[in-house]
Amino acid sequence: MRSRESWSWNRWETPLASVEDRLKDLGVSLPEVPPPVAAYVPAVVCGDLVFLSGQIARNSEGGLLSPGKLGDRVSLEEGYAAARQCALQALAALRACIGDLDRVERVAKLTVFVAGAEGFDQQSVVANGASELLEQVFGDRGRHARSAVGVAGLPLGASVEVELIARIRSE
Amino acid sequence: MRSRESWSWNRWETPLASVEDRLKDLGVSLPEVPPPVAAYVPAVVCGDLVFLSGQIARNSEGGLLSPGKLGDRVSLEEGYAAARQCALQALAALRACIGDLDRVERVAKLTVFVAGAEGFDQQSVVANGASELLEQVFGDRGRHARSAVGVAGLPLGASVEVELIARIRSE
Amino acid sequence: MRSRESWSWNRWETPLASVEDRLKDLGVSLPEVPPPVAAYVPAVVCGDLVFLSGQIARNSEGGLLSPGKLGDRVSLEEGYAAARQCALQALAALRACIGDLDRVERVAKLTVFVAGAEGFDQQSVVANGASELLEQVFGDRGRHARSAVGVAGLPLGASVEVELIARIRSE
Repeated sequence: MRSRESWSWNRWETPLASVEDRLKDLGVSLPEVPPPVAAYVPAVVCGDLVFLSGQIARNSEGGLLSPGKLGDRVSLEEGYAAARQCALQALAALRACIGDLDRVERVAKLTVFVAGAEGFDQQSVVANGASELLEQVFGDRGRHARSAVGVAGLPLGASVEVELIARIRSE
Repeated sequence: MRSRESWSWNRWETPLASVEDRLKDLGVSLPEVPPPVAAYVPAVVCGDLVFLSGQIARNSEGGLLSPGKLGDRVSLEEGYAAARQCALQALAALRACIGDLDRVERVAKLTVFVAGAEGFDQQSVVANGASELLEQVFGDRGRHARSAVGVAGLPLGASVEVELIARIRSE
Repeated sequence: MRSRESWSWNRWETPLASVEDRLKDLGVSLPEVPPPVAAYVPAVVCGDLVFLSGQIARNSEGGLLSPGKLGDRVSLEEGYAAARQCALQALAALRACIGDLDRVERVAKLTVFVAGAEGFDQQSVVANGASELLEQVFGDRGRHARSAVGVAGLPLGASVEVELIARIRSE
């Protein structure tokens, strides 16, 4: 899960490589940001902090990616991939909100909620799917504080929900 | 649950309508703020952010409103109403802390914890009870980032707990 | 659980008593901060806010303190002690990050996740273990907003996880 062959370590170390270049190196494109369906929004800017709504992982058709519980229908690998997808969706929402991901000074805090069957205790492994993506995309600026907890259930039966707080520089 | 007959759309659009006027239009009065019972407080101001403690819904006698789990003893309608009541209590705590709800520049982040029976996956519907109240009270300033998650249990057997972060302008 | 014999009320009231002196009065020494094991860090400074990662309670050998669930293997007293230990570990991480705990202007927000058996509803009592420690250490500056929720499980089978946000003054 920690293989880094697919992206260039050198670019990551180069301070001038833009976040968009890093995403290209990682071979990922950020998903569409669906229009808000309820009385809340994907992201709110408050001074130099941005609060992102919790994301549940969607597949390319907009359906749920890996619904169910870890330790039951959802494997550790699927949970890791779902957390990574949640982080990508959060970045898409962040970009739509602030215009340019190079404005991100620091990913401050990540909270990863994992729906698990009785006895499941590998929430940290699942959460690494989001954490490692953020480090790959942002380098040192992506190193964040984190909580990972196991929950009884998530909206629509999702297996993972990821929320984050980022610090940005003013335009 | 989204009926808006009871409040004036026009007022909502009017920037000069005070939050207290909107509350009156909605026909709600904010509940009493009970004195803190433990080593924590209902709200903390940090610069231009206010962190609110998690609220569980109380009825007018101070007892629990709709205790139990969604998908079991508590219906979706009751859960929605409990989340709305939690948001009202949070506004009461916020007003007691900052003096005037017109100082709220933005509701930044809402987290809604929903106690649910096995298989319950409508946490978003429950959370809308809080989200829609905030939008009704604050208009665009009430549109927030949000996470809704299902938890195994809440203090005293409450069905819903709501916490929020708001941004205020200095006095 | 609220016994305060072991520390000096007078010192607590004295604004000039340093946090390190208070810790000494309480008879506690902050634990070692283990090196980060994943793509996240124990604490992130963002302007005047510090976001702390969720802490699970460790014993002096680095193993888990009181694993399991409240209302099952873990008693209320053990849960309270685990929450207190989590708070101590968070303070250790905070000190390692900002250099001096006297820079803490306010503990802003505490979130306490409690793994509980079906029907467990005393999350607040458990959370007091962290809240009361913070008040003992920081006095009024330690009085925080708080949420306490019951979760389905925690990393490695821990019974309690505590995260916090603090406000510091610039150096």
